[in-house]
Amino acid sequence: MCTSLRACGRWSAFDESGILAKQLTIAVDVMGGDGEVETVLLATRRVITGDPGVRALLCGDRTLIDPFLEAHPEFAAKVDVLHTDQQVLAHDLPAQAVRRARNSSMGLAIKAVKSGDAQVAVSAGNTGALMALSKVILRTMPGIERPALGALLPTKGSDSVMLDLGANVECDEDNLVQFALMGAAYARVVLGTDRPRVALLNIGEEDMKGNEAVKNAGNILRGAPLPLEFVGFTEGDRIFDGDLDVIVSGGFPGNVAIKTAEGMAKLISELLGDAFRTNMLSRIGYLFARSGLKRLRKHMDPNNHNGGVFLGLNGLVVKSHGGANEEGLATAIRVAVEMARKELSKLIAEDLKNFESDSIKPEELAEVG
Amino acid sequence: MCTSLRACGRWSAFDESGILAKQLTIAVDVMGGDGEVETVLLATRRVITGDPGVRALLCGDRTLIDPFLEAHPEFAAKVDVLHTDQQVLAHDLPAQAVRRARNSSMGLAIKAVKSGDAQVAVSAGNTGALMALSKVILRTMPGIERPALGALLPTKGSDSVMLDLGANVECDEDNLVQFALMGAAYARVVLGTDRPRVALLNIGEEDMKGNEAVKNAGNILRGAPLPLEFVGFTEGDRIFDGDLDVIVSGGFPGNVAIKTAEGMAKLISELLGDAFRTNMLSRIGYLFARSGLKRLRKHMDPNNHNGGVFLGLNGLVVKSHGGANEEGLATAIRVAVEMARKELSKLIAEDLKNFESDSIKPEELAEVG
Repeated sequence: MCTSLRACGRWSAFDESGILAKQLTIAVDVMGGDGEVETVLLATRRVITGDPGVRALLCGDRTLIDPFLEAHPEFAAKVDVLHTDQQVLAHDLPAQAVRRARNSSMGLAIKAVKSGDAQVAVSAGNTGALMALSKVILRTMPGIERPALGALLPTKGSDSVMLDLGANVECDEDNLVQFALMGAAYARVVLGTDRPRVALLNIGEEDMKGNEAVKNAGNILRGAPLPLEFVGFTEGDRIFDGDLDVIVSGGFPGNVAIKTAEGMAKLISELLGDAFRTNMLSRIGYLFARSGLKRLRKHMDPNNHNGGVFLGLNGLVVKSHGGANEEGLATAIRVAVEMARKELSKLIAEDLKNFESDSIKPEELAEVG
Repeated sequence: MCTSLRACGRWSAFDESGILAKQLTIAVDVMGGDGEVETVLLATRRVITGDPGVRALLCGDRTLIDPFLEAHPEFAAKVDVLHTDQQVLAHDLPAQAVRRARNSSMGLAIKAVKSGDAQVAVSAGNTGALMALSKVILRTMPGIERPALGALLPTKGSDSVMLDLGANVECDEDNLVQFALMGAAYARVVLGTDRPRVALLNIGEEDMKGNEAVKNAGNILRGAPLPLEFVGFTEGDRIFDGDLDVIVSGGFPGNVAIKTAEGMAKLISELLGDAFRTNMLSRIGYLFARSGLKRLRKHMDPNNHNGGVFLGLNGLVVKSHGGANEEGLATAIRVAVEMARKELSKLIAEDLKNFESDSIKPEELAEVG
């Protein structure tokens, strides 16, 4: 019989509010992403070392992991290793991954969530493969056809939720409506917004603008009794205004939007550097304004906004940017820990279930439109 | 018989290089856009007053235009008015515009290009209607199914051409390939690049990423002997790197990209303002760095990058942002003057024709893929 909570390994730490928190295990795909295995291990170590309530299940090639564990015994004490020398590559097709990569480092991490050995999986690997493997292994929640990749974006106000960021290349109106529901549930859990303001990303704000999927989704969302405030269409220039809680998009334009925003931020950051190097006066100006500018840089650094969450699955999977550095990977792993601690999947499932019993099933929404 | 070139009204001014330049007439839709008629008139006046080689044909309601002309006689001497009280509204559907709005201010401006009374039309009105009316009145060039909206984007290096920015909601592979050809021709004319580097906007750089239209267009462009260097797929974060001359996209993601970039630039600009207001030191810093920052602001101001050009038509049509201010409208009108002076349409048509006779017709490209 287990008399000590800590020894039992299930309840071990106090969270920030002083409430007894569950012991969490995060499954980390150490062979995903464009970087070195060591970068993933360093990021994992950075997050779990400071958090007594978290352990890691490292999925990947033991011959690459073991030397790191030998060099970092305090980290080794908090991890287990699931060995595999198989990995999903950047150019693998989702269908190939599903057929051949269930025992890859990515597949093992997701299977650990399915079996309950871990509460969340994190990978910086191929988005399409991660989505396909997650869907096959974890299955989607009732009423959800396809999971979507969602993340928090910085805005002028508090963060906004945006989805889908690239998990689904082609989306029809039913997918978009389901994304709206999942995004709203995510916003309720993560942003604490009771009735999130949800907009559809479009190329004009008038009702007749856009492609058929977006126009039809707009009609459905306008007509249905939903636990969200549908505010209509938004164009890309309003994404960061901070007056929207959830921005819903198909995966192609959603991915284009987030990557283009990243590119623009990078451009301005470099031009700003040039502006401060213009002459001696501007160099002096930089020295004076340094503290404010550092805060701005931190606010906009993509590494501080890393970690997309697959929404709509029976289990939590977090996707890191493939090119993230140690800091970026650590941010994604922190997102994974936070979402697991908040039991995001369970709360979204309950939210969708309440909504279904209260009013209408997501899959029936199309008939309302 | 016309003995004086100036009196003849066809050859009147020397351009910057000292070569005798043609007298141009620009047709301005003074009732398009979200702003006041007076803003459009002020912007037109600002551009043509300083340019002896340009006259304007103001298309719109004479009762709104005449008081302005009475107040500005020097401007009145350089313009003619085509009266109509009809206008295209922001929520008019393209098909409605084609049926009912040929005699609107927008329709008259385009018809003036068709008849040769003007060398270019400028409008800040509804993009879909402008595209549909332009296509019906001016027709597309041989081998081009649909015109595309292209514009110059600021980058780390010299400007890049991006198209389509929202004229075509759904695009197939043939449209994308034709956009690539038109974009390359535009880059040759405007950027002076002999063999432009062209990329397709996608959600991944690997060949198998993206939707069918983008993948198929990639296969066609990779296989065909073209007067451009096809560099493959690009993600949104590379748009501003300056190593691409032409970025080709369907109208939906293209519009999302450019608007999102605008939103991100606005966000950073506001956060930067906050950063300089953080404390007394940062305020002092701003004073020192002011000149460099002003240059940055000018470089990034959307009003300095206004003016998209419809490519692939037998005639020039320039689209201004609907919400542009006087400065922004003036930029779009300057773009119109520059493109008309460079005879962009004629050069693109010649470029496409040379290409056709040299190698292969654009409409046959699909068979190469």
